[in-house]
Amino acid sequence: MSLDAVLARIDADLDAALDRLMALLRIPSISTDPAFKADCDRAADWLVADLASLGADVRKCPTPGHPMVMGTIGEGARHFLFYGHYDVQPVDPLNLWHRDPFDPEVQDTPKGRVIRGRGAADDKGQLMTFVEACRAWIAVNGSLPCRITFFLEGEEESGSPSLVPFMEAHKDALKADLALICDTGLFDSRVPAITTMLRGLLGEEFTITGPDKDLHSGMYGGAAMNPIRVMARVIAALHDETGRITVPGFYDGVPEISNALRAQWEGLGFDAGAFLGDVGLSVPAGEAGRSALEMIWSRPTCEVNGIWGGYTGDGFKTVLPSKAHAKISFRLVGQQDPLAIRESFRKMVRDLLPPDCSVEFHGHGASKAGQFDTSDPAFEAARRALSDEWPDTAAYIGCGGSIPIAGHFLNIAGTTPMLIGFGKDDDQIHSPNEKYDLESFHKGIRSWARILQALS
Amino acid sequence: MSLDAVLARIDADLDAALDRLMALLRIPSISTDPAFKADCDRAADWLVADLASLGADVRKCPTPGHPMVMGTIGEGARHFLFYGHYDVQPVDPLNLWHRDPFDPEVQDTPKGRVIRGRGAADDKGQLMTFVEACRAWIAVNGSLPCRITFFLEGEEESGSPSLVPFMEAHKDALKADLALICDTGLFDSRVPAITTMLRGLLGEEFTITGPDKDLHSGMYGGAAMNPIRVMARVIAALHDETGRITVPGFYDGVPEISNALRAQWEGLGFDAGAFLGDVGLSVPAGEAGRSALEMIWSRPTCEVNGIWGGYTGDGFKTVLPSKAHAKISFRLVGQQDPLAIRESFRKMVRDLLPPDCSVEFHGHGASKAGQFDTSDPAFEAARRALSDEWPDTAAYIGCGGSIPIAGHFLNIAGTTPMLIGFGKDDDQIHSPNEKYDLESFHKGIRSWARILQALS
Repeated sequence: MSLDAVLARIDADLDAALDRLMALLRIPSISTDPAFKADCDRAADWLVADLASLGADVRKCPTPGHPMVMGTIGEGARHFLFYGHYDVQPVDPLNLWHRDPFDPEVQDTPKGRVIRGRGAADDKGQLMTFVEACRAWIAVNGSLPCRITFFLEGEEESGSPSLVPFMEAHKDALKADLALICDTGLFDSRVPAITTMLRGLLGEEFTITGPDKDLHSGMYGGAAMNPIRVMARVIAALHDETGRITVPGFYDGVPEISNALRAQWEGLGFDAGAFLGDVGLSVPAGEAGRSALEMIWSRPTCEVNGIWGGYTGDGFKTVLPSKAHAKISFRLVGQQDPLAIRESFRKMVRDLLPPDCSVEFHGHGASKAGQFDTSDPAFEAARRALSDEWPDTAAYIGCGGSIPIAGHFLNIAGTTPMLIGFGKDDDQIHSPNEKYDLESFHKGIRSWARILQALS
Repeated sequence: MSLDAVLARIDADLDAALDRLMALLRIPSISTDPAFKADCDRAADWLVADLASLGADVRKCPTPGHPMVMGTIGEGARHFLFYGHYDVQPVDPLNLWHRDPFDPEVQDTPKGRVIRGRGAADDKGQLMTFVEACRAWIAVNGSLPCRITFFLEGEEESGSPSLVPFMEAHKDALKADLALICDTGLFDSRVPAITTMLRGLLGEEFTITGPDKDLHSGMYGGAAMNPIRVMARVIAALHDETGRITVPGFYDGVPEISNALRAQWEGLGFDAGAFLGDVGLSVPAGEAGRSALEMIWSRPTCEVNGIWGGYTGDGFKTVLPSKAHAKISFRLVGQQDPLAIRESFRKMVRDLLPPDCSVEFHGHGASKAGQFDTSDPAFEAARRALSDEWPDTAAYIGCGGSIPIAGHFLNIAGTTPMLIGFGKDDDQIHSPNEKYDLESFHKGIRSWARILQALS
């Protein structure tokens, strides 16, 4: 087992690895939109074929939604799961993309070469870093140094409706020494990271109805209640003047971080000005008295992800609409209970409604936050392996996003999750012009090769 | 000049009159949407041909937007303008229509026969009541008892951008004894009306920008300002808890109605419960302590006509959007100054913005309210003529909608407007399934024949 030979093989095979990634990126596997169901299926088929070409015993497993891809490969005393997802976010607003999101290419930019296209970073590019590391290892050594179970999902971007029942049904196959998850980022270009704190997510969509049909605002304006006005009042009421969320009981179970962790985070030299400056902002918008890093790693939030109602086309229409709609998500931390918050939120909205207005709710996923034990020596081994590949020493960090699968591995199969990824803050995941640095892809593959050796 | 013969001719010709209206309704002349520009032109051509068939000297007059139709017919000492508009509102949400909005038909309903289709009531059906009255009069008598100048617009539903410059340029042709305008309603099925108070209209569209691109709510949520949240705060701030509008100076120039007019309105027996019940509501939503009739006829309002931002498609997307948009309109009364209110509104919005957010405004029309002098004996003559046709005596009423043309006739050409129409509250103008009662159409034609005689 020569690590150097595997790393050399990875370097030599990079162009072919890129070609494979491009083929996967060209499949528009948008899981949230039923119009792309066949494409999700096609992406799963592609992965089954690719893993089979490595010698894996792999199959596409149907679910009520999009299929899972499960396969095993390798022998050895140690057994690791690997999780990634092959589905991607929708691409609107399409007019802000500089090229077809599903016609990916490698581009030269002032900051280096990037792979541009929907899913490049989230999560097809990340997923393939691990697959390519296994491919190189097998090419050099004939087999892997451990047993790997691949577990690839196609519903991560649409709330994972099939995930928990599927995991319950395959609990035994998911028991392993660790669950490796590649869906997170570096701390920065020099500092790789193992993510040990994740925020939870609660998604809610709701529709407020006033009159039972759209009305003429001249004829009814002033007499009939306008549901957009009610919606605005509800949304405006969700935060107080200090930026705290007003849903009753919302902060139950929100812990303060320890002084030790706060000190470690302060030592990271996070540049809030540059972080916000990258997106055209300068003033942190969260709770008064909290740093930007604290807000995104360790504080809960409430965001409006979408709103619509009335006439939204060109020109003007003096309509007093019947309905207003919004999609809202809460990011959760510590021991916050998503289901209790859902009930409290819905009650708060109902209490804010004036007479004659009604509301309908539709839930979109509910997951608790995760904070993972790093006492297993495998964590320090993986951290050293990462530190060998990148300029600076790897850090244990938090993450503002929600990766419910991490908690599910622990709670359902008793398998500790280890989250390692190579994304960067400017990857524009979920946004137009998503990219993945070629360096993330290349050094990501090399990192996994090092970690495979370190853990085996 | 036998009025009875004209009325008999109208009755005998009703089916042919309906066929003509149907042909006009089949042209989708949506003025606010550039995709229908050729259709607006086609509707103007149709009217030119129809008026020419009556013997009018008529032509299509180009403007920077949709054309005007102008024509004259008849001789006599007295000269009246007639105004209507051939453009119609957009038809979305299309899925709520029970048939193609531009495939009109006459339908039997529990409340009587109706003409169903976009524009049936607003304003093609109303416009044609006057044209058909002239046609019957000419068929019976060979000519009209007075001179009529037709002035038909194609931009009424999109803020009339070309109207004022066009009227200024044709000021002399628009001088007449009265300007008859057919774009208003009956008081109810029994009581016809001459509308003497109209609300003004101020339209504003604005976009609030936070981050300069759409962001991932997990990565930035809590740190970056969400423009939908800001938009909600702005809209929620536009009314106080008593339903009054908070734009500084908004109520400057808003008069209280006289006790005499209040008594007359109370005598009309307006049924606010039924008015709201027709649209699924029960509680008046306006200023505390004001009746529903007072709210829609004599009080100013602020309505949100449309709002949009972020992800509005199927499923869920945890985006923190860059922009939020809204369309807002104010209905104005008395001496309220639309331009002063526009400036005050824009300043108020700017003052409510947090750091890092910006706003862009786009104005959509600004017209003052109108209150018209009824001392000319022609008003009483027209009121008696209307009263002869309908079960009960005609009333002078207010109207919640805005018909800027009325003020323009007075201010530009010095011609007093007289607003007479036959729409009903349940016509669903600007909404799906717009209709015009066959009775409105038939008795409307007969009403104009009586008025032509009374005024000549």
